[in-house]
Formats: sequence, structure tokens, C-alpha cells
Amino acid sequence: MADRGFLLVLEGPEGVGKTTQVQALVARLQRGDAPVHAFREPGGTPLGDEIRALVLSQQHMAVAPRAEALLFMAARAQLVVHLQALLAEGAIVILDRFFLSTYAYQIVGRGLPEQEVRTANALAVGGLRPDLTVLLAFEDAAIARARMLARGGLDRMEQESADFHARVTDAFLAAADPTWQHQHPEVGPVARIDADGPPDVVTGRILAALETRWPETFRGLTESQ
Amino acid sequence: MADRGFLLVLEGPEGVGKTTQVQALVARLQRGDAPVHAFREPGGTPLGDEIRALVLSQQHMAVAPRAEALLFMAARAQLVVHLQALLAEGAIVILDRFFLSTYAYQIVGRGLPEQEVRTANALAVGGLRPDLTVLLAFEDAAIARARMLARGGLDRMEQESADFHARVTDAFLAAADPTWQHQHPEVGPVARIDADGPPDVVTGRILAALETRWPETFRGLTESQ
Repeated sequence: MADRGFLLVLEGPEGVGKTTQVQALVARLQRGDAPVHAFREPGGTPLGDEIRALVLSQQHMAVAPRAEALLFMAARAQLVVHLQALLAEGAIVILDRFFLSTYAYQIVGRGLPEQEVRTANALAVGGLRPDLTVLLAFEDAAIARARMLARGGLDRMEQESADFHARVTDAFLAAADPTWQHQHPEVGPVARIDADGPPDVVTGRILAALETRWPETFRGLTESQ
Repeated sequence: MADRGFLLVLEGPEGVGKTTQVQALVARLQRGDAPVHAFREPGGTPLGDEIRALVLSQQHMAVAPRAEALLFMAARAQLVVHLQALLAEGAIVILDRFFLSTYAYQIVGRGLPEQEVRTANALAVGGLRPDLTVLLAFEDAAIARARMLARGGLDRMEQESADFHARVTDAFLAAADPTWQHQHPEVGPVARIDADGPPDVVTGRILAALETRWPETFRGLTESQ
């Protein structure tokens, strides 16, 4: 275990099983000596939970996309202060979403200016960077999306929503590209993990990726019970 | 009246009479043909008011300075969408605080990184710039502050608070310098107005500054009733 703990981020499009995997990883990693904490964004602190509630309760009132992005950043800034304290104590921290979701939803999905959003994120995180970002994705995500769009028969709203989610999915998949990673150092190293198959098989793939990269930290946690 | 309305911002340290002057200016400028609106930051929209309440209600919970700054930016982003609609209709909009308060309190007062906060502000305002920022300040603000600090006898908390407010006051006063203005174009043109004297005299100084620069827009509004 690094003496500053370990920050593991799970990312990926909707429905890829992030929340299930976070729970499974907490259960497995708790077998080790380090304390394990998991948080979802936005939220994870009393202030963050109030911000989450505020965004959700206001959805009928048309929160401006820039305001929404800045509210998420505010929740992140508060969470990061808490994370830094946990990591300083040597904890393993698992996050359900972080900067890559900002990239996919706010920058690519909503079309907000990339450099401004990235700088606001830098203000929020103050230099904290994941030790690993796990990108969960179905092998055929792009194919499935292309088929759905080609099938047609969607009304204007459904089409807009489908286009939005297609852009978001493509944005997540782009993060598997080393060139993209080099241009976005704030995600840290990225491991793309196949999200197809039973949940425990997917958990095994994530643990294997951790043990391969950090054998000292994760050896013994990757074997089944 | 410019066909895109007029955005007037009032700034200055605590106790300089901004809120009184906003009210007086609304009353005077309403004599003209253009609709007049006034807002205070943070707030001015239903979402902004909820953000204001959230920040105030959480003060005992130590909102992280970066989170606080980003919450203020989120409120600003929501307000700016509303302002752009009003300005497009030709309204005169008066704001009680805007970017200069962010500079004074968040950047100089709290010591947050200047470029990151300015970029987050750019994300919030999306290019909207005041037609005029009025900097209300007492002629002897710096002298009064220096005297208070030199007098001594403050306990550690009072000293910290005094230092904080001294830095904030100095930051506001710095904005009167043309070099500072050139380096911070997001404030727009700045007029430093002496805040000493009866409120109606101060209002007269602000109106005179407006009429001098934009005679077509403000002529006839500067005479007393």
C-alpha cells in the first residue's frame, strides 16, 4: 500500500454496471489491511448531497448547463478535501464517477468549452489525480449504438436524447485511446475493462488489472473467496 | 439606450453603501424608458437563492473555499442566462457584486489560484462583460485600515479577520489602477466613486459618471427630482 493511499475511479456510460462493481470492489478490498471508502459523484459529503438534491429538484426549472457543471465541481471540491484526508491516512478510496464523467457529459454531451471546464475541474481537485481510472465498457457499445440509430423510428425528443447519449458513450470510449489520455493527464492511467459477462467475472477483471500494475498492494485480494 | 441594454455593476468593500446605492439608482433610472432590474450576488434566480441559502446554512460545516467559490460561480452562471435575456430586450441591469467581488474575496482574500478562478468565472459568464463597474470606496479606506491594524490590541481571531478584510479592501482598491484593469478585462471599464458623504450625493456622483460616458443613454436622469 502506498503511504498516501490509493484512489481508484470507476467510469463508463449508463447501464455498464459501475455501482455494482463499486460495491463488489469494496467487499473484496476490505479483506486487506487498508481502510476502504467508496463515494459517488455528485455527493459523498453533506454539502455534496445537498447539491445533488438541488440539481435533481430543479430539473423542471431548467438549470443552465454551465450552472449544472459548476455545481458538480463545487460538490467535487468539497469531496476532494475529504478524500485528501482519507488518502493521507493510507485509505483505498473508490469513486463512482470523477473527471471522465465531466468530460463525457458536460464537455462532449452538453458542448461546454473544454478548456474552461477542465480548468474549473482543476480548481475543484487541486492537483488530486486518480491512481487508476477504470473505464467499464461493453465491447460492442459503439456497434449497439450505431444499430439503434440506424434502426430509426425515434421521435424528435427520443432522437435528441439518443444523440446525446451516443455522444456521451463515444466520449467515454475515446478515453481508451493513449493519445487522448496523454492530452488529459487529470484522469491518471486508464484501464479499459470489458463490462460484458456476470458481475463477478467483471470484478475479477478489475482486480486482475490492479494486481498486474500494483502487485504489492493488491496481491491476495484477487483470488476468489 | 444601446439596443443590447446596459449592464452596471456596483462593487466595493463591506459597509461602503452598495445596497443603498443600487436602490437609489433603480429609482432614478426608472424615470427613463428602459426597464430597470437589479440583482444581488449570490442569488437573483430561484436556483441562485437556493445556493445562497445553502452556503449560509452550511457555514458551521466548513464549506471548502474552492467549493464556496464554485457555488458562487454556479449561481452566477444561472443569473447570467437570465441577464442575457433582459439585456437583449434593452433593459438596464444593476448588479450588487460581480467578478470584482470574486477577485477580492476568493482570489485575494481566500488565496485561491487566480487563473483557475478567472477561468471558472469565464465559464460562468460566457463572455458577458459589464458596461461599467462602479467601484465605491472611501477616500481614506487604506488609511483607516492601516490605523486600525497599527492600533493593535486585537486577539488572534480578530487579527486574522482584520487581515482578511484588509486584503479584501486592498484588492478592491487595486481595481482603480489602469494597469490592473488592463490585466482583468472581464470587469469592463471601472469608475472609482468616492463613497463619502450623504447617500444622495454619492448617487449623484454615480449618475454623473454615467452621463459623462453615455450622454445619450443617461441624459435627463441625472437631475434631481
